[in-house]
Amino acid sequence: MGANTFGERFCVTTFGESHGTALGVVIDGCPAGISFDEGLLRNELARRRPGGKTPSGESITSARAEEDEPEILSGVYAGQTLGTPIAMLVRNRDARSQDYAGIAKAPRKGHADDVWRAKFGHADPRGGGRSSGRETVARVMAGAVASMVLRALCPKLSVVGFATQIGPLFLSNEERAELFQKGPSSSWVDGFPARFPSARLSSDVTELLSSAKREGRSYGGVVEVFCDGVGVGLGQPVFHKLKADLGAAFLSVGAVAGVELGDGFRVAQEEGSGFHGAEHDPSHSRYGGVRGGLSTGERIILRAAFKPTATVLDVAKAGRHDPCIVPRAIPVLEAMASLVLVDHLLWQRTDRWVG
Amino acid sequence: MGANTFGERFCVTTFGESHGTALGVVIDGCPAGISFDEGLLRNELARRRPGGKTPSGESITSARAEEDEPEILSGVYAGQTLGTPIAMLVRNRDARSQDYAGIAKAPRKGHADDVWRAKFGHADPRGGGRSSGRETVARVMAGAVASMVLRALCPKLSVVGFATQIGPLFLSNEERAELFQKGPSSSWVDGFPARFPSARLSSDVTELLSSAKREGRSYGGVVEVFCDGVGVGLGQPVFHKLKADLGAAFLSVGAVAGVELGDGFRVAQEEGSGFHGAEHDPSHSRYGGVRGGLSTGERIILRAAFKPTATVLDVAKAGRHDPCIVPRAIPVLEAMASLVLVDHLLWQRTDRWVG
Amino acid sequence: MGANTFGERFCVTTFGESHGTALGVVIDGCPAGISFDEGLLRNELARRRPGGKTPSGESITSARAEEDEPEILSGVYAGQTLGTPIAMLVRNRDARSQDYAGIAKAPRKGHADDVWRAKFGHADPRGGGRSSGRETVARVMAGAVASMVLRALCPKLSVVGFATQIGPLFLSNEERAELFQKGPSSSWVDGFPARFPSARLSSDVTELLSSAKREGRSYGGVVEVFCDGVGVGLGQPVFHKLKADLGAAFLSVGAVAGVELGDGFRVAQEEGSGFHGAEHDPSHSRYGGVRGGLSTGERIILRAAFKPTATVLDVAKAGRHDPCIVPRAIPVLEAMASLVLVDHLLWQRTDRWVG
Amino acid sequence: MGANTFGERFCVTTFGESHGTALGVVIDGCPAGISFDEGLLRNELARRRPGGKTPSGESITSARAEEDEPEILSGVYAGQTLGTPIAMLVRNRDARSQDYAGIAKAPRKGHADDVWRAKFGHADPRGGGRSSGRETVARVMAGAVASMVLRALCPKLSVVGFATQIGPLFLSNEERAELFQKGPSSSWVDGFPARFPSARLSSDVTELLSSAKREGRSYGGVVEVFCDGVGVGLGQPVFHKLKADLGAAFLSVGAVAGVELGDGFRVAQEEGSGFHGAEHDPSHSRYGGVRGGLSTGERIILRAAFKPTATVLDVAKAGRHDPCIVPRAIPVLEAMASLVLVDHLLWQRTDRWVG
Repeated sequence: MGANTFGERFCVTTFGESHGTALGVVIDGCPAGISFDEGLLRNELARRRPGGKTPSGESITSARAEEDEPEILSGVYAGQTLGTPIAMLVRNRDARSQDYAGIAKAPRKGHADDVWRAKFGHADPRGGGRSSGRETVARVMAGAVASMVLRALCPKLSVVGFATQIGPLFLSNEERAELFQKGPSSSWVDGFPARFPSARLSSDVTELLSSAKREGRSYGGVVEVFCDGVGVGLGQPVFHKLKADLGAAFLSVGAVAGVELGDGFRVAQEEGSGFHGAEHDPSHSRYGGVRGGLSTGERIILRAAFKPTATVLDVAKAGRHDPCIVPRAIPVLEAMASLVLVDHLLWQRTDRWVG
Repeated sequence: MGANTFGERFCVTTFGESHGTALGVVIDGCPAGISFDEGLLRNELARRRPGGKTPSGESITSARAEEDEPEILSGVYAGQTLGTPIAMLVRNRDARSQDYAGIAKAPRKGHADDVWRAKFGHADPRGGGRSSGRETVARVMAGAVASMVLRALCPKLSVVGFATQIGPLFLSNEERAELFQKGPSSSWVDGFPARFPSARLSSDVTELLSSAKREGRSYGGVVEVFCDGVGVGLGQPVFHKLKADLGAAFLSVGAVAGVELGDGFRVAQEEGSGFHGAEHDPSHSRYGGVRGGLSTGERIILRAAFKPTATVLDVAKAGRHDPCIVPRAIPVLEAMASLVLVDHLLWQRTDRWVG
Repeated sequence: MGANTFGERFCVTTFGESHGTALGVVIDGCPAGISFDEGLLRNELARRRPGGKTPSGESITSARAEEDEPEILSGVYAGQTLGTPIAMLVRNRDARSQDYAGIAKAPRKGHADDVWRAKFGHADPRGGGRSSGRETVARVMAGAVASMVLRALCPKLSVVGFATQIGPLFLSNEERAELFQKGPSSSWVDGFPARFPSARLSSDVTELLSSAKREGRSYGGVVEVFCDGVGVGLGQPVFHKLKADLGAAFLSVGAVAGVELGDGFRVAQEEGSGFHGAEHDPSHSRYGGVRGGLSTGERIILRAAFKPTATVLDVAKAGRHDPCIVPRAIPVLEAMASLVLVDHLLWQRTDRWVG
Repeated sequence: MGANTFGERFCVTTFGESHGTALGVVIDGCPAGISFDEGLLRNELARRRPGGKTPSGESITSARAEEDEPEILSGVYAGQTLGTPIAMLVRNRDARSQDYAGIAKAPRKGHADDVWRAKFGHADPRGGGRSSGRETVARVMAGAVASMVLRALCPKLSVVGFATQIGPLFLSNEERAELFQKGPSSSWVDGFPARFPSARLSSDVTELLSSAKREGRSYGGVVEVFCDGVGVGLGQPVFHKLKADLGAAFLSVGAVAGVELGDGFRVAQEEGSGFHGAEHDPSHSRYGGVRGGLSTGERIILRAAFKPTATVLDVAKAGRHDPCIVPRAIPVLEAMASLVLVDHLLWQRTDRWVG
């Protein structure tokens, strides 16, 4: 399998450099007969797109005005998937590659220019080429189609991400517990600055990020993703445990430095009779919805840690950097989780014989 | 690709149930002409095997007396690999499946019996079947061969894991810093109880685990793995970033609940100009040896969190449980890391054309 | 995927050298809940085994007395498949590798010793190692399991091969037409010397092969395989057309030099309005049961041409060669066809969404 | 791996329906640093394109005026491959889908409309969708890039196809022997009507095909492909024998009904001591350049049989059909052979360890 393909059944191959002609994706393995919802596709692209404004009008993401107009090349006819490969692309329009002229001479700190050159014998001087975060636009397109398939195969399933931490700002335990109880929707989360669902810290996060943007700082953060309505038994026992595939999906996103399932690193300190033996407490994430590598039917809970963006250091990109990639990364993680879930839903169809 | 295969170039397929006839592995893609070191294979199996004693003679792992005698079926002749598939197996000898008779009726808490049944229409009543930790014996065999290949391809490379936390006991910052400076060897780590390299807490960890074993408790922990001597440019840019493949490798191990690279979850609180812009400090792990998904040539640093073992709850297994899986899991994580590194070393051979 | 794995859903990995410890197979992707029929497995191994006698008692195949006792290592419990990998092996017992001592010095004509050495830097001097026809024992084991799955998934399906040519002896057009009408069973075919179903030429074929064996000659031949009861729509449109996968399956068998579907090479001379426009004639194979790469529901008809065996030239193997590999190759082609059909039956499960 | 991906190392994924927006391909696994020759790409597209005229001005292929203007979307920069996926597309311009309106009601004889509907629950009424021969435009684009890689990796290698039979017209034994001696070039072959390199039958083939076009007939034929300059040891021993991968490549092309290597079906009648034991005769193809599944360093010789085109039956397409697909299929077979050779050249890089 190629290095740019993801998934074993619902196979997604992405292509495109940050400042090349176009970015795109081919989905091979999408069942025929799925309703294709172009509005959903455009909406997910818009959610990933930079340029979001705070309620007060301050921009807290990159100013790069990508339009991300999707073009569907194949695999869809009369509003339905054909069972053939679905190819989609987005052209690069705002590709000021002259901004990047200096890179040809000196690799940028915190970026991959130097290691890329060691590997391939060159570094694409046009904005990081394929190591740029812009490649995630193809993932979001694929994830949108995965959502359409999930809607048909598993109508109750939902995948929702939100920030639990933006640099030094955290959700409180009470806020987190309330979210757990509530089971938030993406559209509700989208109403908060930086997709950080805390009314309490709303203005703090806006202030943090807009001043960071003005003054040349950047922050990391943590994203939590809930997958609800997943049935029992998704995943494959050994190497393709659901947690392994979800973890790889998240760690394949550029700035992610760690991934947790359920109680994550906190489990290390637990004692086993208490941890496993406790009566079932629905507010308790513990296993994070995966046991023995398979989904248990409970909510799947994942967390990913993001590094602060390195672009902040580029003089060439002054004023165009994201002070925190977390808000824009949330639709990307949702897309990756949806891809894994569809892949395993299709995989599950060959698990057993029923006479 | 099958669910039980790992790797894209150095392809490892494992088989075997915990209480079936045998566990084994087929390695497809091992280059011809590698010296086969059966001693190394036996040593790695011994390191994974339960039954380790503390200096004071107390057993701190499961009492199950597996012998794990490896048999090499193919792919090796006259002390060298042939380039054909290497098949190896270990027979199950101590397979008291009667211990598990009760499982056929009631699924065990914290285990996968119930979800397994939902998936496959049955649960193997013999000790968890393939969801048992015993499947890792096949990974360790594969990892041993990976080590032989690494020795030939990349002689300076080493992969060493150690515990940084056993339940409530942690390495201090000073101990961790010293380890970072030292670059420990596996044989040095093996000299400590529970592979927890702290002279200071040596008797505490022994006491914690031996009393847990007597009294029916279990603990989680954290393992750190250092990969030294890896060259620059290993990994593939998008979905097969080195961190994604290493993360999936670790998360595919049963009890792992989280994985970190370099500074991991701590990066979420960092500010970017400081994080990325700092002068290079060799004692600082930051990126963990991977940038843009590719190895930087620096030490690769990974951490994995382990849940406390659930077997502690099984009345049927009284006295046979591991109070903490971490010591035995360390050779498994080392094996998985070696598999990923060999896979990418072979993959790297087709990265570019050199005239 | 590894070089020794076959199939995309029902993934078969084989291992073992001709004169090594054992040959075997791991099947990954077999659904749980299939009845495992060990008798069928043993029967297929017996059908491939050399040592068949003619009615008159003359041996017409190699005298090598392989016992081929299968051992099932995993994936089966209480008479059913578990959904986990099925590993099986056969030990090599009659491994007179001293016969092959000369090979280390001089590569054998018509064999792969020289090209193998160019590739891997060595040639296994023990009887051709993995390029020996003995590797097909693993294919036959896998094919037997495929038959068990087909029996459950598609009870009317049958796969039957027979010789249409043994060296200079051919079925007549009338005999071929009668076979087409009849739809022979494997057990009926097995009643003929060399699986060449012609009462007319029965003694001729026996005489041809037994004299060839005595006098050091060998012959090629042609095998035809009928797959009946395959439903409509098996295959994948472009690269995994059913004919492409069946063709690769047959061409992967050592001595096969050509493959045809339906009318095969004869179609080259046909005129299209007649060929395609003719009223449906059930005695006419034309498309061979595959159109647009997909099964049509009609009988699938394949033909493979076999080279004469090269072993005839080996002084070292005097008296142990097969004068014609065709009779023993028939169960191997049946196995390969069954593997392809199971693979596509499982693949088909994800073709479309049905609300 | 997806159904629309070809190759294990040089992975080619194609997309697009005959009358959709575009057809295209993503190549994943092309090494960095290969000179990209857009002229070669355009030339190969032109060679596949219909509309060729005979010397006398008669059209002997389909009148459909496809322009096949390639657009390169990614993976190439400053005239070199980047090591990232190469995406290319050709838009459909002459897509009179109204011609095909009738298909929605009645499936066409000899086409895949009916089996396609059984599989996917629909048949794309627009000219066969993805089962149309138009999908081969993507293969030719991929094959052109494969040629560029071959030029860098293996400068002496050439892949040349030509017709040996067009319906009832055959090359004579003398003509074939002369071709074998000569080792023709593609440009020389392109100078003959229908790429049938016989000066003797040149006007006959023109007359046959132009009258067939006028009068609504169609013919099959046979193509032979020579691969010269391939080194020793290409191919993988068991399932990915070079002949198996080449055979699958050819059989994956729509109208191919049979494939042969070297002496092909004629070997069935040979006696072994003569066949294998003969002194090496360079004019004799025998093994066809592959032994034990591996290339021998001699010329690789393949033959493929083509069915007469079915489109001749379509009233809707009156005047637009190809009376014989063979001339246009030759660049497609060359492309497929090049893809297999590049794949195995890259695969070969991990065969062995050299200290």
